[in-house]
Amino acid sequence: MKVLILNSGSSSIKFQLIEMPQEEVICSGLVERIGFKDAILTYKTNENEYKETLEIENHQKGLEMVSANIMDPEKGVVKDASEIEAVGHRVVHGGDAFSATTLITEEVKDKLREFTNLAPLHNPHNLKGIEIAEKIFAGAKQIAVFDTAFFQTMPVKARKYAIPNKFYTEHGIKLYGFHGTSHKYVSEKALDYLQNTSHTNIITVHLGNGCSITAVKNGKSIDHSLGFAPSNGLIMGSRSGDIDHSLIFYLVNDLGYELDQVNKMLTNESGMLGLTGYSDLRDIEAEAGKGNKECQLALDMNVYRIKKYIGSYVAALNGLDAIIFTAGIGENSDYIRGHVCKDMDYFGIELDEAKNGVRSKEIREINMPTSKVKILVIPTNEELEIAKQSYELLHS
Amino acid sequence: MKVLILNSGSSSIKFQLIEMPQEEVICSGLVERIGFKDAILTYKTNENEYKETLEIENHQKGLEMVSANIMDPEKGVVKDASEIEAVGHRVVHGGDAFSATTLITEEVKDKLREFTNLAPLHNPHNLKGIEIAEKIFAGAKQIAVFDTAFFQTMPVKARKYAIPNKFYTEHGIKLYGFHGTSHKYVSEKALDYLQNTSHTNIITVHLGNGCSITAVKNGKSIDHSLGFAPSNGLIMGSRSGDIDHSLIFYLVNDLGYELDQVNKMLTNESGMLGLTGYSDLRDIEAEAGKGNKECQLALDMNVYRIKKYIGSYVAALNGLDAIIFTAGIGENSDYIRGHVCKDMDYFGIELDEAKNGVRSKEIREINMPTSKVKILVIPTNEELEIAKQSYELLHS
Repeated sequence: MKVLILNSGSSSIKFQLIEMPQEEVICSGLVERIGFKDAILTYKTNENEYKETLEIENHQKGLEMVSANIMDPEKGVVKDASEIEAVGHRVVHGGDAFSATTLITEEVKDKLREFTNLAPLHNPHNLKGIEIAEKIFAGAKQIAVFDTAFFQTMPVKARKYAIPNKFYTEHGIKLYGFHGTSHKYVSEKALDYLQNTSHTNIITVHLGNGCSITAVKNGKSIDHSLGFAPSNGLIMGSRSGDIDHSLIFYLVNDLGYELDQVNKMLTNESGMLGLTGYSDLRDIEAEAGKGNKECQLALDMNVYRIKKYIGSYVAALNGLDAIIFTAGIGENSDYIRGHVCKDMDYFGIELDEAKNGVRSKEIREINMPTSKVKILVIPTNEELEIAKQSYELLHS
Repeated sequence: MKVLILNSGSSSIKFQLIEMPQEEVICSGLVERIGFKDAILTYKTNENEYKETLEIENHQKGLEMVSANIMDPEKGVVKDASEIEAVGHRVVHGGDAFSATTLITEEVKDKLREFTNLAPLHNPHNLKGIEIAEKIFAGAKQIAVFDTAFFQTMPVKARKYAIPNKFYTEHGIKLYGFHGTSHKYVSEKALDYLQNTSHTNIITVHLGNGCSITAVKNGKSIDHSLGFAPSNGLIMGSRSGDIDHSLIFYLVNDLGYELDQVNKMLTNESGMLGLTGYSDLRDIEAEAGKGNKECQLALDMNVYRIKKYIGSYVAALNGLDAIIFTAGIGENSDYIRGHVCKDMDYFGIELDEAKNGVRSKEIREINMPTSKVKILVIPTNEELEIAKQSYELLHS
């Protein structure tokens, strides 16, 4: 069966059409700059790549164009919409209502509307994508795959904040987590690789533009670095990650900032960007190599934060079988991986520098043969994970 | 020589008179509820303890009464003020200006005034205590011992936040740390006990009303859980410790709280109090023992947070020789110590339950003989540490 995967953002739609259970990508692409006169539609089949710049007023138009490309007599890959049996939607926030992949009904959409304030940057766009897809692919099952679902197994002690109980019980303030589809995908790949699905202690390190880290025990997440919102934990591209929260009060009360300015600063002007002026890690690594001290310090801070989270999750797991690096930076930066794994032999972590230096798109092991802990690089594939979960839902 | 140690708070003065270098406490006591009609003065010599309730209008009167008791012909311990050669003041915040114990001059006081906004709850009272002591003990050297000094050795990567650089360079926003005098005292005691002053990796866990944890490598602090203000890190009596800072924006923007209410809530109504309704850990342990689930969860959260910090500092140290528990809870709660050290054998931590259960005022080792990591309970003594540092300053 053919499953169309949709990831709808504020001004973009990412898509992939996958033949399941063969896991074959039939076509994929991206609509960018929705709402602008110079929007860009990229459409890729196994033979060709097409790119056009044109006005795309809204998400409805964007998805109609995706549909038109997929069914185009010349460049298309299916004859009509009925061939697409399911549309799998990435939904960022499922609150506490959804701990698993779900067939979308009116009730499900109502619930998602309730969670809009928990993920204001993502959920409204995810929902819009669902509503448009219901019209365009009316014959297909619409399925929601939640980024938060993987963290629903976490024990309460790791999800609750030490603030008055009413915020937990009445307002649902707790750790929800993010990037769950990626952490689930790579942790399952790791279990396959390790050929051991029980009694395993794994730490998955997702380093992309957003960054997060998850402790996975016997296939289930037990702790995670992002919380109520995707703000804290590791140092990200433009997000601060962990800070002393008292800074917020100081910036407003003593330095005269508006609260909204502080929020914007911590979200858009902090992290590696705030520390270096660069937002692309490759630039920062290059600059540090040329002797830029701010860039070097930012890399040191970034690496140090990851190391400390690994240590804290080793305590949570009381053990460690494998560390998994994934996503853009995790898959491609041998610098970050190398420095994170350096001087970690007390944990049984020993990196093979040569193996770490090899670039590849495949799953690979980069530890020394003597290393007690496996160090794996596993390319993430959230679209495939959404397709797998959609397929499983319809066949279970 | 006799050194008077003063710890001046918002409505209290703690004092101790110590003969140095013998480290003999000659007398000690506390003035409480300064500014009230029913203030309490407690004064203790090696023979007797005196307690009186009376009106004490201000700190000046309070310290005059302390002085009068110490020099009283009957219950006093010195004949006149000139016998007191030095007054050692606990000063909470030394900013970046003071990395060591300092003789107080006009310039030093000016600097301390500058740091008032960094520690608004403490520094103004510390400074008031200094100014009054300069009048009452005019012949004595006045010495400032800073809680922040022990953290000045920390590498920048552990002190800086991942926010725009200008906040670090122009506004001094960074980790300053707290309880430094206690962490220094117990870490030095531990090094003596271990008979190894170099190549040692120690984690000191200070659990009192405020709680913090420090990674100490070869006698120097390299990381610490409290930051710019004493807000984050471990779960405290009424302070939240670490939260996702985005909660602050959500509470104000979505739930309609005032920013000051949120600050007050996180400082005074959170932590163990917010989770259980109880502020004394002994009550919480007793309630949990009777089956109170909120109390049990709060204990689980508290212990889990400490375990994770230990793990993160093992990563920072890449090793662990000893964990030190100190301060009220750290010295007295075998429950907390026992559960923190449980299921930590991957780190080489093995607790001896029987030894953990023994109550004592002495330094003691509570690990199994087979434990790679020593687990020590070391009673803290900030007053003695201030006396030692004051004595050393005058004799170096």
